[in-house]
Amino acid sequence: MTTHTHYLWFETKKRQEIIDITDELEEQLHESGIREGFALVSAMHISASVFVNDHEPGLWHDILHWLEHSVAPWEPHRYRHNETGEDNAAAHLRSLTVGHEVIVPVTNGALDLGPWQRVFYGEWDGQRRKRVIVKILGET
Amino acid sequence: MTTHTHYLWFETKKRQEIIDITDELEEQLHESGIREGFALVSAMHISASVFVNDHEPGLWHDILHWLEHSVAPWEPHRYRHNETGEDNAAAHLRSLTVGHEVIVPVTNGALDLGPWQRVFYGEWDGQRRKRVIVKILGET
Amino acid sequence: MTTHTHYLWFETKKRQEIIDITDELEEQLHESGIREGFALVSAMHISASVFVNDHEPGLWHDILHWLEHSVAPWEPHRYRHNETGEDNAAAHLRSLTVGHEVIVPVTNGALDLGPWQRVFYGEWDGQRRKRVIVKILGET
Repeated sequence: MTTHTHYLWFETKKRQEIIDITDELEEQLHESGIREGFALVSAMHISASVFVNDHEPGLWHDILHWLEHSVAPWEPHRYRHNETGEDNAAAHLRSLTVGHEVIVPVTNGALDLGPWQRVFYGEWDGQRRKRVIVKILGET
Repeated sequence: MTTHTHYLWFETKKRQEIIDITDELEEQLHESGIREGFALVSAMHISASVFVNDHEPGLWHDILHWLEHSVAPWEPHRYRHNETGEDNAAAHLRSLTVGHEVIVPVTNGALDLGPWQRVFYGEWDGQRRKRVIVKILGET
Repeated sequence: MTTHTHYLWFETKKRQEIIDITDELEEQLHESGIREGFALVSAMHISASVFVNDHEPGLWHDILHWLEHSVAPWEPHRYRHNETGEDNAAAHLRSLTVGHEVIVPVTNGALDLGPWQRVFYGEWDGQRRKRVIVKILGET
């Protein structure tokens, strides 16, 4: 059994942003030399997500619109958490809905994703330095 | 450490459908010979889910109703993704909400599920061939 | 490869409650002796969640309010599942939204969590005995 650990850093220009990190994940898999196992990709923040979906900008727009209009509106006055001086309670609820981590299977030395599956970092409260852990566990 | 990989194929009759796959998962566990570890069950499509819940048809009805009326209505004109010629943006948002994968613990050679827990494939855009990967990692 | 399995028991006083279980998880990690690997923390019930978020009581209030007013209102008459004699269909939908499990990476013998990340048990239908499995897999 081998493990390989790497941290990806982000500092988005916009407060909400969706970033395809599949290439970085593949690079880490090749560095690890692991051929069979699991790759955990997990946001290290409670106002961000990691998820698997489609590389299609129209869909990214739909996701951001849906998070604001259906899942949890930003409106700071709605939330008790924001009485602590924060304004990002909505980002926490968006992280709970979409999830903060995925496990990608590794088979024959490659990410075993379906034809349209890509891995994304979802920043729900950005414009500051944040991190994602990539931890791959398996056999070389 | 051993790994065992298997793909389940689906082609649902209805566009949305919920299918209990616990028996297929148990069969794969027995084939693997793994007694302690993790079983990853992950949809290989971005318009489907894998989740753990209750084997109760009334609840399956409630889930489908909730996805349409509360999580993300199908209405194709709502979504920018559908300007690509698709009509399934809602299926993507449903997959993000419910998730596309679960990890089931394996203890003493059995799925270590609670008394009412079963594993389901949630098809949110069916009537075509789709896949779920089962990847079990652990010790025999 | 080593695995370590432990069950946490809960019997909440209120029907809905959010409980920080990070200390119990750390204790199990130390007992396991595992230094590199994955810790699975998974509710063994279909009306509960395990999630990673912030240790901030205002936020816990926001989460419970959001589950009731935005995700799935309790109102028993809304749901077909409740025709079986249950009244907890909403708890199932809340479990599907927030998820029932997390994988926490283990690095250098510690939970590899970000600065504000803590692990929580979310009880959505309590006042009875329920369980969470902690299963840690890795290398000592």
